Amino acid sequence: MINRHYLELKDDYLFAEIDRRVQAFQEAHPERKLIRLGIGDVTRPLCPCVVDALRDAAQEMGEQVRGYGPYQGYAFLREAVAAYYASRGTHVEAGDVFVSDGAKSDLGNILDIFDTDLRVLIPDPVYPVYVDTNRMAGRPVSFLPAADTGFLPLPEAGTRADIVYLCSPNNPTGAVYSLPQLTQWVEWARACGAVILFDAAYEAFVCEEGMPRSIFEVPGAEECAIEFCSFSKTAGFTGLRCGYTVIPSALERDGQKLGRLWLRRQSTKYNGTSYVVQRAAAAVLSEEGRRQTREAVDYYRENARVLSETLETLGIAYTGGKNSPYVWLRCPGGMTSWEYFDFLLERAGVVGTPGAGFGQSGEGCFRLTAFGRHEDTHEASRRLLELGR
Amino acid sequence: MINRHYLELKDDYLFAEIDRRVQAFQEAHPERKLIRLGIGDVTRPLCPCVVDALRDAAQEMGEQVRGYGPYQGYAFLREAVAAYYASRGTHVEAGDVFVSDGAKSDLGNILDIFDTDLRVLIPDPVYPVYVDTNRMAGRPVSFLPAADTGFLPLPEAGTRADIVYLCSPNNPTGAVYSLPQLTQWVEWARACGAVILFDAAYEAFVCEEGMPRSIFEVPGAEECAIEFCSFSKTAGFTGLRCGYTVIPSALERDGQKLGRLWLRRQSTKYNGTSYVVQRAAAAVLSEEGRRQTREAVDYYRENARVLSETLETLGIAYTGGKNSPYVWLRCPGGMTSWEYFDFLLERAGVVGTPGAGFGQSGEGCFRLTAFGRHEDTHEASRRLLELGR
Repeated sequence: MINRHYLELKDDYLFAEIDRRVQAFQEAHPERKLIRLGIGDVTRPLCPCVVDALRDAAQEMGEQVRGYGPYQGYAFLREAVAAYYASRGTHVEAGDVFVSDGAKSDLGNILDIFDTDLRVLIPDPVYPVYVDTNRMAGRPVSFLPAADTGFLPLPEAGTRADIVYLCSPNNPTGAVYSLPQLTQWVEWARACGAVILFDAAYEAFVCEEGMPRSIFEVPGAEECAIEFCSFSKTAGFTGLRCGYTVIPSALERDGQKLGRLWLRRQSTKYNGTSYVVQRAAAAVLSEEGRRQTREAVDYYRENARVLSETLETLGIAYTGGKNSPYVWLRCPGGMTSWEYFDFLLERAGVVGTPGAGFGQSGEGCFRLTAFGRHEDTHEASRRLLELGR
Repeated sequence: MINRHYLELKDDYLFAEIDRRVQAFQEAHPERKLIRLGIGDVTRPLCPCVVDALRDAAQEMGEQVRGYGPYQGYAFLREAVAAYYASRGTHVEAGDVFVSDGAKSDLGNILDIFDTDLRVLIPDPVYPVYVDTNRMAGRPVSFLPAADTGFLPLPEAGTRADIVYLCSPNNPTGAVYSLPQLTQWVEWARACGAVILFDAAYEAFVCEEGMPRSIFEVPGAEECAIEFCSFSKTAGFTGLRCGYTVIPSALERDGQKLGRLWLRRQSTKYNGTSYVVQRAAAAVLSEEGRRQTREAVDYYRENARVLSETLETLGIAYTGGKNSPYVWLRCPGGMTSWEYFDFLLERAGVVGTPGAGFGQSGEGCFRLTAFGRHEDTHEASRRLLELGR
């Protein structure tokens, strides 16, 4: 009767186990002030122009009805997304943009349009949602160990898959693919007919000149890639919920446009994204909205800089921190990631995320996020430096 | 590579074909004013307390962060839902309520937690989403012809299924199951181990004393039913997006609690419903919110009364109209539903929905909705009466 694949999933224990250990520690040491750099949630409030857009849209809906919207999202938002790409020199058609309640939903639901009998390739360590959503449908998953590649694995002679997930800037490692590296993936996918599912949720954190923020910066990607984007980290929408997915009209498999299949999926199992939220998202992409949200991104980026500098001072190897809100470090002294978790919690009162939670190749690594407050991040840095002495 | 079941779906042509015919007619007769009683979308704006709640929540999110919410929905809303049931004398635990962006999403996505190899039984005529979401997963569907039962089919000696869909008040027929009838379904499901997917999206329109608004009014339903509810028609949320699904903790299959499987599905493929929308939904369930939204429901109910009375005057058989915003009529003169569509369009300038769009047993019937404006509904009534002379 039930979907038996659900029983094969690992328990979603990572953050529950973190909570359990943190709570036990806090009960034993109620006087210690903990600093939480574990979960990737934002801490800055929504920027003023987003709040204004929400309030205006609410007012509007109280004056005249706004019923079912277009399944694909309102044109005003899809056009704003296309203009946002254009401002970065990348061409995306507004008609190829599909608005939703978030990248996580789309990353899971996109699998509906594919056969269950596919070869799926997922880099390890990785955002656990890629793995679980495939396992729920009974799809076997192959892993691409990333630890020896600076966490930026590339296709090799024997690499075979129908679907490959790429996440850049990466969660959890913070590593970012260069344009030549992404080009290798696109050429590989075009040669073998694979589809790249490109998770660009953290693109707003890319600041280095020349580093790609979209797979569509690579010529030919429109024939082999789907890109997933989010307002969550760009504009603090984790609680407001909006994302968008780009499926180029040139992307076909088995003679079918994947965008058309996706629209059929969405029109059957989804009824569009909240009008007020779409108005808020469009405000993010306005000139003033981009300025205001950039301030929040810069705020987090400054935290990432502080954490990176701390690790450099301590001589701890790490990736990320520059074009990413995540800093991914090698646990010192050969500790396992849970050993380092306990060590940091007990000795510094700092909570991070053990790398083992992101896959086998994450063992021996540890994730810190830059989404905290400045004062907390500075205090965490001070404690880490003291501990390292 | 692609999910081949998508290619077996019928083209989603119903409303597209309606649009095509309406547009052709309007171009040929630009002077004729059409009255649209086809699509089930609301026409009243959001009520004041919902607008206030949205504005307050937006303001709050501009002052302090509201990040990822609970996957299952905020306790303030789940408790308000439980209290709403309690006010109608029905017991539902807040812990068994799962908030989402709408009943349509949940009705489609719930199938994720079930085996693909199930016997699915669907009354005909029916909301097309039940059929398409199953076909997308390759599940064969059996139909339960409803036309000879007053559109309220009941289980018979030979009825066998693992999942059955019931929608009451029904879309498209407006028919409502009585408590003894629902009890028959619950007893049947408990005897054979089937799960009832109960679509209660239109429960707010039930006004007759003693007519059930929830499957959970039937003792034992908590062991065999999932109920899907929506703020769309109750409070005009079609563009705002919020619904909730009740999965009792007593509901188990194969030794697994279905609510637990659903939470795993939602935590993996969904990131919660927008905070501002949840605040708006909670406002609907406040004392003042219930009063204000009742006004809108009464407004539509008055339209339904006008349409019903018109059909009675004309001697046209119909169901619905009393506890439902839909009026489902037998096409006069033996016309097919598309013939009657053209007839009404050309002779009265009234747009409805042909019954054939809801399944084989919908042929010969026609749906009118009460979601129009009073003045339009009265004008439609006047034209129908004139046409009937």
